[in-house]
Amino acid sequence: MKKHLFHLPDGVIYLDGNSLGPLPIAAAARLDQARDEWADLLITGWNKAGWMAQPQRLGNRIARLIGAADNSVIVGDTLSIKVFQALAAGLNMRPGRQVVLSDNGNFPTDLYMAEGLLRTMGRDLSLKVVDPEDVADHLDDSIAVMMLTEVDYRTGRKHDMAALTRLAHENGAVAMWDLAHSAGALPVDLAACNAELAVGCTYKYLNGGPGAPAFIYVRPDLADSVDPALAGWLGHQAPFAFDLDYRPAEAIGRMRVGTPPVLQMATLEAALDIWDDVSIHDVRARSITLSERFISEVETRCPNLTLASPRNPDERGSQVSFTHPEGYAIMQALIARGVIGDFRAPDAIRFGFTPLYLDEADIVKAAEILEQIMTESLWDNPTYRVRAAVT
Amino acid sequence: MKKHLFHLPDGVIYLDGNSLGPLPIAAAARLDQARDEWADLLITGWNKAGWMAQPQRLGNRIARLIGAADNSVIVGDTLSIKVFQALAAGLNMRPGRQVVLSDNGNFPTDLYMAEGLLRTMGRDLSLKVVDPEDVADHLDDSIAVMMLTEVDYRTGRKHDMAALTRLAHENGAVAMWDLAHSAGALPVDLAACNAELAVGCTYKYLNGGPGAPAFIYVRPDLADSVDPALAGWLGHQAPFAFDLDYRPAEAIGRMRVGTPPVLQMATLEAALDIWDDVSIHDVRARSITLSERFISEVETRCPNLTLASPRNPDERGSQVSFTHPEGYAIMQALIARGVIGDFRAPDAIRFGFTPLYLDEADIVKAAEILEQIMTESLWDNPTYRVRAAVT
Repeated sequence: MKKHLFHLPDGVIYLDGNSLGPLPIAAAARLDQARDEWADLLITGWNKAGWMAQPQRLGNRIARLIGAADNSVIVGDTLSIKVFQALAAGLNMRPGRQVVLSDNGNFPTDLYMAEGLLRTMGRDLSLKVVDPEDVADHLDDSIAVMMLTEVDYRTGRKHDMAALTRLAHENGAVAMWDLAHSAGALPVDLAACNAELAVGCTYKYLNGGPGAPAFIYVRPDLADSVDPALAGWLGHQAPFAFDLDYRPAEAIGRMRVGTPPVLQMATLEAALDIWDDVSIHDVRARSITLSERFISEVETRCPNLTLASPRNPDERGSQVSFTHPEGYAIMQALIARGVIGDFRAPDAIRFGFTPLYLDEADIVKAAEILEQIMTESLWDNPTYRVRAAVT
Repeated sequence: MKKHLFHLPDGVIYLDGNSLGPLPIAAAARLDQARDEWADLLITGWNKAGWMAQPQRLGNRIARLIGAADNSVIVGDTLSIKVFQALAAGLNMRPGRQVVLSDNGNFPTDLYMAEGLLRTMGRDLSLKVVDPEDVADHLDDSIAVMMLTEVDYRTGRKHDMAALTRLAHENGAVAMWDLAHSAGALPVDLAACNAELAVGCTYKYLNGGPGAPAFIYVRPDLADSVDPALAGWLGHQAPFAFDLDYRPAEAIGRMRVGTPPVLQMATLEAALDIWDDVSIHDVRARSITLSERFISEVETRCPNLTLASPRNPDERGSQVSFTHPEGYAIMQALIARGVIGDFRAPDAIRFGFTPLYLDEADIVKAAEILEQIMTESLWDNPTYRVRAAVT
């Protein structure tokens, strides 16, 4: 759909945009521009180049992609930090309740950050982690916050955000969604589903670059009453008054914390431009076409691989995983042949479908290479078994 | 000392390196390199380009500048986040004590983050904020953590880190230092002073770029027992095992949180290279020469300006402030004439001395321009009174 807007190395079929999106060509120029602003404007860049307004400006760009109102999303920090911040806000909305409900398909850092927050809060709080399909059964009046990731990072399994949010609300719980594998991958309608809180990251389907900042959403009617646990100066009503006491900024502004990473924000901004003339509904339709084709090709060509993702595309995000006991070595063999996906312990090889820069020819070619690796046991090579630090 | 290594715009005398350091020429090339790594290596950059090791590698570079042992400093997040993380760790070291002691010369975000943390922790904790000169008098056995910034952001007034840390320890309190205006400005000897915790930022004297990440130090003998409040996945012992439970990494590694901002880290790394053949003691000596000269020139030339910084250079960091009721307009007039300092409410004009790229000719020239502004009332111009969002 927009392949010409991305830098894609020759000979590479990139099926890992669900982990790190490729470089948008315009992001390179925007990065040069930000560097020159730093060089030439120095400290005055905060005003003159609009750096200080980046978090809000980019938040509004992302809002449009996730069905959120203007001025309800702000960009900054890492996703882990935003999870902490959102969950703390959610717990404060239900002071009489003690339980955070999540599932074991959530990305681990969400669970770790929750554990750390609950330890820090000290009162009698607990984290209940159930199987993804059992979340609905555990929603009752003990639950303060239902904290879920919409799309499972391992298998692409997708929760029904609207239904679970409704159920959470019927039980008096706050709904908090991690959209890491949703934003830019499929239509999200936060306003319609009425969830109180959401977070997400921008280096996957949004192509913001390695370590690009995260985002946080607070439902507009609640934003002015959220008490920020991470009460940073740039979330203050008047940061440059240098008051000794914290007075939170209006609305989502209070979820800002510290100084924004200007260079990362600049590349992200260029990456978000691409979405201006793309319909997320079209992206979703193309993603389903690509993933269905891939599953069909792989199942025909590679009978030893087991589909680990839901077969129904409506129940998946924009990625597909297969399992095999030698998954790690298979993925290394694929990467050596230019097909970049990734591996998730213990045995899953994972492929992301990003229609902005992938077409069906790529998908078929990738399946062909995978077939060759499997039929000729090309993965059976000691060098492919050496685990890298990051897998 | 190293002026040729920086990009400094023509006609500018930059006296605001204490707020945002200028672009190191090598950082521009390193940024291009990081962009190309992203473009060509895509997800494999995390291993192949060493991105995943950036926080530790850069931490070790900074450690040498602040008298810290190898593997005791790690880079990431913003300074606000690192304050929260360090203070939470400090409070957990003294579970029986209830008071955080700070001073009203601390940078506001430190106080705000402390307030937010104490509210989050909920138990009967309080933040006591006293005048900087009264800190010693308030150290008693109620104090859990003494949380101070070594150098006052407004005036440059410098605490005696060794003496106050000793006193904190005599009273059984944990000592936590914010080195935002110290790192790269003056010799810091964390190991000698034995402070438990320190944090700092890298976009001031270390020239890491706008929004460059912060750092945190934990005294090595304590690092393995710190319970991270911000328990992010990259602080896990085995992040890519994707365990459901958090097991903190060894030593300072557990103070990592989320995905590092690779582009910002790259420029910071190039900026840190400059320190490899510079002695921080020489930098300090030159900084004192420059600031003494500036004070003397300004006091001679501009009798209406009042020195707001300690007169004794041993009691100052690497910046000098003067007050004047029209401080804001005076600073705008200076900036319009190429002398970039900054303004801190209510009435201080602030000048940073950064010997890496400033010499005495710059200082004298800046004083001359200031003299002209004051004697000819050049500040008395309505355009200089329009306050920008960031001042």
